[in-house]
Amino acid sequence: AIIVYRLPWTWKCSKLLMKFIHAGLNTIAMILAIVSMVAVFEYHNAKKIPNMYSLHSWIGLTAVIFYSLQLFLGFAVFLLPFAPVHLRALLMPIHVYSGLTIFATVIATALTGITEKLIFSLRNPAYSASPPEATLVNCLGLLLVIFGSLILWMASRPHWKRPPAENAKILRPIGATPEGTEEESTMTNSSNADKSDLRINTEAARKQNLKFDEAGQRSTM
Amino acid sequence: AIIVYRLPWTWKCSKLLMKFIHAGLNTIAMILAIVSMVAVFEYHNAKKIPNMYSLHSWIGLTAVIFYSLQLFLGFAVFLLPFAPVHLRALLMPIHVYSGLTIFATVIATALTGITEKLIFSLRNPAYSASPPEATLVNCLGLLLVIFGSLILWMASRPHWKRPPAENAKILRPIGATPEGTEEESTMTNSSNADKSDLRINTEAARKQNLKFDEAGQRSTM
Repeated sequence: AIIVYRLPWTWKCSKLLMKFIHAGLNTIAMILAIVSMVAVFEYHNAKKIPNMYSLHSWIGLTAVIFYSLQLFLGFAVFLLPFAPVHLRALLMPIHVYSGLTIFATVIATALTGITEKLIFSLRNPAYSASPPEATLVNCLGLLLVIFGSLILWMASRPHWKRPPAENAKILRPIGATPEGTEEESTMTNSSNADKSDLRINTEAARKQNLKFDEAGQRSTM
Repeated sequence: AIIVYRLPWTWKCSKLLMKFIHAGLNTIAMILAIVSMVAVFEYHNAKKIPNMYSLHSWIGLTAVIFYSLQLFLGFAVFLLPFAPVHLRALLMPIHVYSGLTIFATVIATALTGITEKLIFSLRNPAYSASPPEATLVNCLGLLLVIFGSLILWMASRPHWKRPPAENAKILRPIGATPEGTEEESTMTNSSNADKSDLRINTEAARKQNLKFDEAGQRSTM
């Protein structure tokens, strides 16, 4: 779901379809997370194992709570048509950051869970004797780390971003030069001949620009 | 060390001093990492505990290996004056990404290590009985997650980047409009009146710009 916006084949889809794919995949993941949470508690209760005592469970529950918040807010702000554009622009960097952070936290949860499970389950031979199962599952854990790193790489490359849409020209700050609309702002700026004046203008535009770039403003169209 | 470049008080320092602080803090961290690795192996050998069997140790050793590579490459490319600017620009996004990924991996290593230690050390009462020690250490684990999230937030905010230096005007791609040099490129572009021509120019500049922005090019001066 994270890299939906990073796949070139989705650039041909409409913005709305991409949003639906992103939201749909995340909803499926949330349903699976809830099913697995229920399964864990049922299993613990049936086996008389205490709930929520381990660091794994604490981090995992934190991640699930933030994930459901993320899903709810994302749905309310970015999918429903009610939120104003400036709110979307304000929340987009937070949405992106918290999505990636929740993703990394879920990987950390999986790694602590794998560690627990190996210690509890491998008894004869023990985990410390490095039986083949331990080596296999350690490899799976390392693969999880590699998988997480790759996803974060893909999500953080600016040139893997979806190219801006042609109509993404609304709400540009004056003097800013975002990628799609360089000719307009260039034309406006060039009439201004006073260099010191321009320095102030462009300095303000730089800050605005950063703010809007960061806000992934074109994602809010 | 990661957020050295994000602290406003360092913006007054010279670029070279900032690099020295960044490299110095990372070198101290590397020395501490080596000391603790030696301590772990000595302790294991003295107590007849097998080495390198757990997922914690695998992930931890991977992180340390990549960290030492990162330190060596960072020193050779960004601190020594021999590397050409285009190599620095090419390696900078990789340096930033791998620094943050190693940081996240180290947090994950700490969390698996805490999980192991709690399971092995808490026997009577066991970890599953949630003694006060378990709750305390779980809280420390959660604080580690929060700490990691905050550092990643600070490191990934574009407007917390160091403002560009006045002399950072070398090696700009033609037609690109990075923050500090907007007036120059604006003036050049404005002479071009053909709109379709400009569209091609700015499209190419956009790509170049993204590439160079990503390269954190001004960090290479």
